[in-house]
Amino acid sequence: MNFDFHTISEPTLLLKAGIAIKQIARMSEKAQKNGVIFRPHFKTHQSAEVAEWFREFGTTKITVSSLAMAEYFAAHNWRDITLAFSVNPRQIKTIDALAKKIKLNLLIENTEVAESLVSHLKSQAGIFIKIDTGYHRTGLPWDASEKVLKLIKIIENCPNLHFKGLLAHSGHSYKSTSKEQILKVYDATVERLTNLKSNIEKSYAKDFILSIGDTPCCSIVEKFAGIDEIRPGNFVFYDVMQYQLNACTTEDIALTMACPVVAKHESRQQIVIHGGAVHLSKDSLLINNKIKHFGLVVPLSDDEGWGEVYKNSYVCSVSQEHGIIQAENELFESTQIGDLVGILPVHSCLAVNLMKSYITCEGTKITIPHL
Amino acid sequence: MNFDFHTISEPTLLLKAGIAIKQIARMSEKAQKNGVIFRPHFKTHQSAEVAEWFREFGTTKITVSSLAMAEYFAAHNWRDITLAFSVNPRQIKTIDALAKKIKLNLLIENTEVAESLVSHLKSQAGIFIKIDTGYHRTGLPWDASEKVLKLIKIIENCPNLHFKGLLAHSGHSYKSTSKEQILKVYDATVERLTNLKSNIEKSYAKDFILSIGDTPCCSIVEKFAGIDEIRPGNFVFYDVMQYQLNACTTEDIALTMACPVVAKHESRQQIVIHGGAVHLSKDSLLINNKIKHFGLVVPLSDDEGWGEVYKNSYVCSVSQEHGIIQAENELFESTQIGDLVGILPVHSCLAVNLMKSYITCEGTKITIPHL
Repeated sequence: MNFDFHTISEPTLLLKAGIAIKQIARMSEKAQKNGVIFRPHFKTHQSAEVAEWFREFGTTKITVSSLAMAEYFAAHNWRDITLAFSVNPRQIKTIDALAKKIKLNLLIENTEVAESLVSHLKSQAGIFIKIDTGYHRTGLPWDASEKVLKLIKIIENCPNLHFKGLLAHSGHSYKSTSKEQILKVYDATVERLTNLKSNIEKSYAKDFILSIGDTPCCSIVEKFAGIDEIRPGNFVFYDVMQYQLNACTTEDIALTMACPVVAKHESRQQIVIHGGAVHLSKDSLLINNKIKHFGLVVPLSDDEGWGEVYKNSYVCSVSQEHGIIQAENELFESTQIGDLVGILPVHSCLAVNLMKSYITCEGTKITIPHL
Repeated sequence: MNFDFHTISEPTLLLKAGIAIKQIARMSEKAQKNGVIFRPHFKTHQSAEVAEWFREFGTTKITVSSLAMAEYFAAHNWRDITLAFSVNPRQIKTIDALAKKIKLNLLIENTEVAESLVSHLKSQAGIFIKIDTGYHRTGLPWDASEKVLKLIKIIENCPNLHFKGLLAHSGHSYKSTSKEQILKVYDATVERLTNLKSNIEKSYAKDFILSIGDTPCCSIVEKFAGIDEIRPGNFVFYDVMQYQLNACTTEDIALTMACPVVAKHESRQQIVIHGGAVHLSKDSLLINNKIKHFGLVVPLSDDEGWGEVYKNSYVCSVSQEHGIIQAENELFESTQIGDLVGILPVHSCLAVNLMKSYITCEGTKITIPHL
């Protein structure tokens, strides 16, 4: 830790680069060992600099969640990008321009958009069909093989479109409360996708892949049998949500928000920090299915960045700029007005997106664009 | 409405400038009629351009929620600013530099910070003492007159600090469910502040003011008896939160997020939009105390910007980029993939802060800085 905390006067997102690099190493090695394609989602870090850490481990294929993000990473020399968001027909012109420059994979889930691509896309693009494996957010149901085949037919009849495979995001893994439940979501996802694949192969002869995405499953599962590609994103930094899901430990969390203490209220044993909804987001979790919180508390330390999480303290409310910590005795007594405390964010993707920059514990400031 | 919706291809925040100006007129006239100082909070719009609309109605004193916001508006020629956030002792150097340039009012609530200002502030500053009138977020309790007097004494002994008054934000008005409850919060706030004032006046002879702030109270109350200054902010745009609180009607809401429709799911009668937590925020409300939602739906229209709210439709979930609308029949049937729909945000302050720009229905793009 070479970073001087004295320079921090406002909410500041700190990054343990070593932890993030360890997660990248671990996930890419796991993918390699299993013989699956590692196509990490870059929506969590949103940074060309962090992206280079992935490149060190051999990553060449990536996933993004918006066209603007695809353009940003394309401008930083990423040449094989899956835009894992159902094609927005109003963006086809811009998509076309990008597909001319790089290997771009798109996501579709209905004939309307497939036909719109057939009519308007002049460049070549890979196409994934989004499959709903139980999350019920987007995609064709896993048992709708006729509908999937109809889409494949539309794609195959167009010389610019190339069917790449079936893509799922089992976001319902986020509703799990144990590793066993996450594994069950994974097993069901693979079973549903492989069944669908078998059905399709009865009338479609070419090769195509199965791609899955969520960080909880990709973190917990050791053997990726039956699927061909993983697209986790959040694992690079993790957060309290993943910790509460048992997808990581608190030591795996690479980000903390350093927040100045502006007041203490003895009667409620609460600490008021500068650090609110415009820094941490309003994403919340429950402790023991009861107590809503917006982040956990860690002590900042000059040598290691930050230390172990306080077991009985949490951010109990946030407004635009304020956060209120419900503090245990030790934290309350040892914290003075003017100190900094660390808040492990509930959702690192949203905290990064709000802050637009983070500082490594070595003192390097990483700034991300407003996409 | 001169704005061409065809140019919108991604989530875009639309502003009915006429509605915002009407709210500014209404609130400033109400303040004037009551003889109270109108010191609007600029954290909602965060824009130097919108600030000029206030100037047209005679506004010269403003409120902000962060030092960066104070610096931004000072750079745009606002010369009398209250930073309504308890002084962060780590920012005193920057505060000092700003206080040298403009009339800056600061907020304190404890002796530690008061003494820190006495020791380190070289410029002149006005000081408000933050009073907790029942919200229990920050401030000295309304019945702690001894502690308030102690703070006043510290301030008065310092030639650079000038005691201006007592400041409250009755944020518990946001927990109201009717106009009557909001009025009760207001009445209790005024009673508590005026009692405190009487107690202080027993041993302190100089004049000072009482300042209150929340939009629900300032919207509902017609006669501001007993207080001297109002600092509402959200009223300039309002949002679904204020509508559900009965602080405004849906016609008073000046902002909507235009979102492209990317998919429809007949079995669930859901519409998938590009428009998620990075656009609308994760702030949510309950419908009838039961159903969680992240925004209400309006049809966009070329002539008026947008029309009346769909009574039985709502955004039922948001992830980073996606929103899911639970749609009533009429909305579901009339909406096609590739269309735009409007989402009235739950919390306009957070949506503006995330988007960093909005477009007026006349086609003017207003961009705000990342503060």
